[in-house]
Amino acid sequence: MPDAAAINRDLEAEAPAIHASLSALGRRAFFPPGIPHQAMQARGTRYNGTIGQITDGGGLALPLPSMRATVALEGDSANRAFLYSPVPGIPEVREAWRTRQRRDCAESVPSSLPLVVNGLTHALSIAADLFTEEGRTLAVPTPYWGNYRQVFTMRTGARVATAPSLDANGRFDPHAIPNALADLPAGQPATAIVNMPSNPGGYMPTAAERAALVQALVGVARERPLVVLCDDAYAGLVYEDVPRASLFWDLIGAHPQLIPVKIDGSTKELSFFGGRVGFLTFGVDPASKTAAALESKVKSLVRATVGSPVATSQIIVLEALRSPDLDDQIEAVRLQLDGRYRVLKDVLARQPDDLLRPLPFNAGCFAVLRLPSGVDAEKLRHHLIAEHQTGLIAIPPHHVRIAFCSVAKTDLPELVGRLVKGVRELMG
Amino acid sequence: MPDAAAINRDLEAEAPAIHASLSALGRRAFFPPGIPHQAMQARGTRYNGTIGQITDGGGLALPLPSMRATVALEGDSANRAFLYSPVPGIPEVREAWRTRQRRDCAESVPSSLPLVVNGLTHALSIAADLFTEEGRTLAVPTPYWGNYRQVFTMRTGARVATAPSLDANGRFDPHAIPNALADLPAGQPATAIVNMPSNPGGYMPTAAERAALVQALVGVARERPLVVLCDDAYAGLVYEDVPRASLFWDLIGAHPQLIPVKIDGSTKELSFFGGRVGFLTFGVDPASKTAAALESKVKSLVRATVGSPVATSQIIVLEALRSPDLDDQIEAVRLQLDGRYRVLKDVLARQPDDLLRPLPFNAGCFAVLRLPSGVDAEKLRHHLIAEHQTGLIAIPPHHVRIAFCSVAKTDLPELVGRLVKGVRELMG
Repeated sequence: MPDAAAINRDLEAEAPAIHASLSALGRRAFFPPGIPHQAMQARGTRYNGTIGQITDGGGLALPLPSMRATVALEGDSANRAFLYSPVPGIPEVREAWRTRQRRDCAESVPSSLPLVVNGLTHALSIAADLFTEEGRTLAVPTPYWGNYRQVFTMRTGARVATAPSLDANGRFDPHAIPNALADLPAGQPATAIVNMPSNPGGYMPTAAERAALVQALVGVARERPLVVLCDDAYAGLVYEDVPRASLFWDLIGAHPQLIPVKIDGSTKELSFFGGRVGFLTFGVDPASKTAAALESKVKSLVRATVGSPVATSQIIVLEALRSPDLDDQIEAVRLQLDGRYRVLKDVLARQPDDLLRPLPFNAGCFAVLRLPSGVDAEKLRHHLIAEHQTGLIAIPPHHVRIAFCSVAKTDLPELVGRLVKGVRELMG
Repeated sequence: MPDAAAINRDLEAEAPAIHASLSALGRRAFFPPGIPHQAMQARGTRYNGTIGQITDGGGLALPLPSMRATVALEGDSANRAFLYSPVPGIPEVREAWRTRQRRDCAESVPSSLPLVVNGLTHALSIAADLFTEEGRTLAVPTPYWGNYRQVFTMRTGARVATAPSLDANGRFDPHAIPNALADLPAGQPATAIVNMPSNPGGYMPTAAERAALVQALVGVARERPLVVLCDDAYAGLVYEDVPRASLFWDLIGAHPQLIPVKIDGSTKELSFFGGRVGFLTFGVDPASKTAAALESKVKSLVRATVGSPVATSQIIVLEALRSPDLDDQIEAVRLQLDGRYRVLKDVLARQPDDLLRPLPFNAGCFAVLRLPSGVDAEKLRHHLIAEHQTGLIAIPPHHVRIAFCSVAKTDLPELVGRLVKGVRELMG
């Protein structure tokens, strides 16, 4: 039976940059030969008294009738919805998600079997535990999703180095991350987040910008181990003619010290917000010792934080993944957002530049608008609620975010109208 | 708007023992005025562009048809199963669970509105973040659930002080926790776990033992702030005439430095293993500043670890909690286990004492058996799988655990027979 030292040695030999990037907790993490491991070994025995869940004695769940009636599933699926998921996730879900992830990807590009976690934030927080800690730096393009601060700095104490995602001309800056990390001591491992399409920016880079970004990240990796967390929460929600695939695939094999990690899930990709099914995937051969070591570490952190991932939602996701017209179902959602995007873009283009300036957006769920410098975003937010029955997110001091994913197409012109009115009123 | 310092001051003034018990992360934790907070303030506006989830524009979810078809719910329930849960949980679930928790409890005993988390382990891990850290001690009665090591020591670096739950005569020892903490520097805060019914022990104390335990814990609290995590995973699964209620209720108000925390959930209580709905409850007035401060801290840790708790499973739990015959549904499950318990107890009583000695058990899902000292538990486990088609959990060096919750009543005699045969063979 291996232990933490053994899997760390495997990593050091096979993937030294990953080994060097681990936090102290990441080095400690190791899935021990505890109850789930012993239960796995006993699988198939005729008299199996290993499993600490209530069954009929033959492996079938004993759901309460009131709860059983809520699930329109039969047989094995119904059963598994009520029983524990394996710690790394339900095997068919992992396999089916991997197939879907790799649908446009060359056979030769390696990627691990995704580990199931409780939503994308859980994947981020496990990546934070593995790769960040006090004294480490995390580069985050701005504007960024505020919860990164809770996930990373509050919990692990990592330092956030902000990387303005737009240059002085308001265009995507592929050098933002290298610039943010330029002052670090030579060789010190670092972590960066790449969130494309972005929240709150709503931006997906063009092919040229993406190529420049890959080169820029390779440049960092020449200097230090660089873990790149590809937060693909909004994958697929792209409304202009730019590449839609995750940057994860471009980063695999780009440099030995570049360590891409894919964080994705069903929340937005399958429009399943309540379900909390996320995945953590590494750019390594699933049969490698590296994959086994990382899986052991992630499993131990899943076990330590939530016990096991939610089975009920995984079974619901599995129904979608088995659906022959899944792509059409997803496209129908994308088209709804596409329609709202076009209306919003059009309405915003007709507003006076000195009142509202949209940052470039072409994807995702959001648009970010720059306010005139005299207008405080937080003050405007309260004003819009109180006087205009309009709710927006303030990004202090001078930006607001519109979530067009939750506003009807026909309401968007009025929403923008009220926003402009509010801005005018605050300008006095 | 308050900040971490402000809510810490509230705690210090109103609940100094809780304040003194917080870890460094526990002191940092504070739910910031981020997107969920802003979205909450915008609730009810006519043009609401705050919410980062895909809806039809009128607040309704847009589930994929293949996933919508798996849920036998209509209207608002169906809708909420697919949308984000509020970070502290769905209000009706919290209220209904509180009512159920307090069903045998005097009006005057304070308890907070439970916070929903992703299963009981998540509640434990958040309690670990709040109250333990390197240099702190956690008393854990033995034998204990192995995952406590992952949740506490691996992650937070706390020191585990084991507290043998049985005395030299094989009887429940109410002084185990005080003994385990006796050497700590005076006044240093400590944490203890009380897991009743226990895993793997399957034991629920008698009324006299319970009274002695409360007095023993009060004795510790006279010396130092003592957080007592009541891990009530197996609540209600009691098969003999001993008190069934959580120790949590006995500890509330027992001493100003005694801080009971209730950790419970639907996993075993509602036989919903796959759902991952757990709760974290404090023994404080829900309208107090202390409750507000603790809620802010727990919410920030939920947000930082999993984003928000699973909504789908909460809605399924809500259907159960609204069911007029819920108690009968739960009792039907308990009766199944009760039947197995009686068979197992009876069969074990008829085995030779020198081959198998059951530790006292009267509750929960498990029985623990002491092996003859010449027989290694791990060796026996492998032997039983390989030669006897029998799976048990080894608790090295000399105990095994039988999970009668997942073995049919009619299989238990044969399972014990094979176990005894295996023990005989290994004794040579």
